Amino acid sequence: VSRIVTLTTDFGSTDAYVGIMKGVILSIAPETRIVDISHEVPPQDVTGAATLLDSVWEYFPADAIHVAVVDPGVGTNRKPIAVRAGRGLFVGPDNGLFGPVLTRQGNLSVESGTLRDAEAVELVDERYRLSPVSPTFHGRDIFAPAAAHLALGLPLASFGPPLTSIEPGTSFPLRREGTMIYGAVVRIDRFGNAITNVPSRAVGGHILLSVRGHCIPGIRDSYQDAPLGVLVGSRGTLEIAVRDGSAARELGLQRGDPVTVENAS
Amino acid sequence: VSRIVTLTTDFGSTDAYVGIMKGVILSIAPETRIVDISHEVPPQDVTGAATLLDSVWEYFPADAIHVAVVDPGVGTNRKPIAVRAGRGLFVGPDNGLFGPVLTRQGNLSVESGTLRDAEAVELVDERYRLSPVSPTFHGRDIFAPAAAHLALGLPLASFGPPLTSIEPGTSFPLRREGTMIYGAVVRIDRFGNAITNVPSRAVGGHILLSVRGHCIPGIRDSYQDAPLGVLVGSRGTLEIAVRDGSAARELGLQRGDPVTVENAS
Amino acid sequence: VSRIVTLTTDFGSTDAYVGIMKGVILSIAPETRIVDISHEVPPQDVTGAATLLDSVWEYFPADAIHVAVVDPGVGTNRKPIAVRAGRGLFVGPDNGLFGPVLTRQGNLSVESGTLRDAEAVELVDERYRLSPVSPTFHGRDIFAPAAAHLALGLPLASFGPPLTSIEPGTSFPLRREGTMIYGAVVRIDRFGNAITNVPSRAVGGHILLSVRGHCIPGIRDSYQDAPLGVLVGSRGTLEIAVRDGSAARELGLQRGDPVTVENAS
Repeated sequence: VSRIVTLTTDFGSTDAYVGIMKGVILSIAPETRIVDISHEVPPQDVTGAATLLDSVWEYFPADAIHVAVVDPGVGTNRKPIAVRAGRGLFVGPDNGLFGPVLTRQGNLSVESGTLRDAEAVELVDERYRLSPVSPTFHGRDIFAPAAAHLALGLPLASFGPPLTSIEPGTSFPLRREGTMIYGAVVRIDRFGNAITNVPSRAVGGHILLSVRGHCIPGIRDSYQDAPLGVLVGSRGTLEIAVRDGSAARELGLQRGDPVTVENAS
Repeated sequence: VSRIVTLTTDFGSTDAYVGIMKGVILSIAPETRIVDISHEVPPQDVTGAATLLDSVWEYFPADAIHVAVVDPGVGTNRKPIAVRAGRGLFVGPDNGLFGPVLTRQGNLSVESGTLRDAEAVELVDERYRLSPVSPTFHGRDIFAPAAAHLALGLPLASFGPPLTSIEPGTSFPLRREGTMIYGAVVRIDRFGNAITNVPSRAVGGHILLSVRGHCIPGIRDSYQDAPLGVLVGSRGTLEIAVRDGSAARELGLQRGDPVTVENAS
Repeated sequence: VSRIVTLTTDFGSTDAYVGIMKGVILSIAPETRIVDISHEVPPQDVTGAATLLDSVWEYFPADAIHVAVVDPGVGTNRKPIAVRAGRGLFVGPDNGLFGPVLTRQGNLSVESGTLRDAEAVELVDERYRLSPVSPTFHGRDIFAPAAAHLALGLPLASFGPPLTSIEPGTSFPLRREGTMIYGAVVRIDRFGNAITNVPSRAVGGHILLSVRGHCIPGIRDSYQDAPLGVLVGSRGTLEIAVRDGSAARELGLQRGDPVTVENAS
């Protein structure tokens, strides 16, 4: 079996940090298939990485190993962890990176951080770390070796003591009141599309979406349909888009902006 | 056989779109070798992607599958297609992305868009798409699954009805009048070199190249030979270069600039 | 055996140069595992690439092949070379790219450029080059084919005549006088950390580091420990870091800045 290991980091592409992690992984598990998700997460943006990671796991095989390293607390007492969810094995620091993924899979209570039907461990066994572990680069010294040994088939329990809860991290509000849905912009993508957390299946085909004082009717069928519109994005959530332009720039939108959706049936 | 699938997109490296496409491909065809050409095509720059793609196919095996997704018309009625050329199989939207590749291989009449000695189909069979197909991300829902099934060896005819013509897209002028050749700058590369479409074999070793009012003698042997020069670039076409600097910036050159070459023998 | 080939270049991610090199490698040696180190070396920054390369080789298998192409002299008479060091095989232009790697492995005298216990050749055999060799893209025409044939197991001696010395390139000063160590900033990373060449094992746990008029006590245990601090970076050398910020920007640090370390115990 050649297992897949994905990598999501804020290491950028100018340094050698990502290449070093790959060297460590391939030295331990030479047949691993490594897939880069992104290394351009803004430095130390745990919430951004968590949202990114939550958009990829469902398109990978159930036994894929997803490593995420956005780790402002490296060298402090935050735990290095691995969690087996319904779909995918997640490896990285316990700082909220895996909150959205595990919540959406039903493996985490976002209020309490309690895990459900998920196996989690703290990565402490020294046999599966590089030695010595540096205080600054656990991606190389702890997470890459863990991912490689998991790719080789080592059981999760070998790495350390089990955990029953993890840090849930930041989540975006989403609630319904009558015909209104209150959500948020959770991500601005490269094209300037503002992606919300409002599932399209929660609304009808005729809506009014309000954000930053703009009121936008929807739902459009494609990016070409209107100069400014709301459509169903690739995650199945509502997305605000400007044809051949950037909705984020033109409307001044940012991550976290509250969004209100009214079913206009 | 582990087939190669290359990817050329305008998805950038900050979002998860590329990683998602790779997850889809590897879920269907786990042994595929995926090679990134570039994901930094400027958003919606179909012509730029077409030129880029035309510089790579000849260096890959004849059975390599080249996926290109620069797709401003996603969700409209432009066709999703796959074309088997003399060398390489090309998968993406029918918006001109494959015009230069197929023209140079002699598989396309650039005036009419008629195919010659090339097999092409519209990608419509639902068995080889994700379901449902979103209106915004055919890279994931149509092109990645098609590439994966092609990598597994599925015949082109399985995907949908045959096509006899495709959209040829933008092409750059190139013509000869006596000792003069009229061409264009087709690309500015990272180093600021201005790459033209004038084949070096069409000219002698002593030329005068005119562009934007500058008159530059050639042909130099290397980038180090002169402060400003014309040399034979890696595509076998004339290239305008400044030693240790950017020709594009210093001469104010852009893609599309007309270039005149006079044989000065 | 599927050998690893790493790539370090200044080709960037907007052009097809890297993809073309991968096509050439996989056409010759289809089972090669290609790992990108970085393609974002600043254009023609040989010293930067040399430092980068020196941070990765020890994390890869001993038989990994490391290709580096930062090559302002392409097309001139600088030699294309391959060097087998104690760990790793290095392929690229003979312009100093491999000085730091080979010096640290004890395979090179940095003053004379003389090799020790290392096998090196000039890459001249035409059977292992593309034909014709362009004057502008030896990454494609010489280095990628050489790496692929090495990955297939071809002996180094097949490629051309042996070399007993190579260009050592730029090295950063490092010397001790009594309790003082004089070194330099060798790299600024993405996070703005200033990485020095002073090995932590050369100093005690209590030091004063001076750089650009700033005097910084150390050694801290993690990035979170102090607003401004010195800690042991992932290379095992001292590193100047600002918590949740950029030391380089806040202190105005650059590569090459002299650093003085005083043992303060």
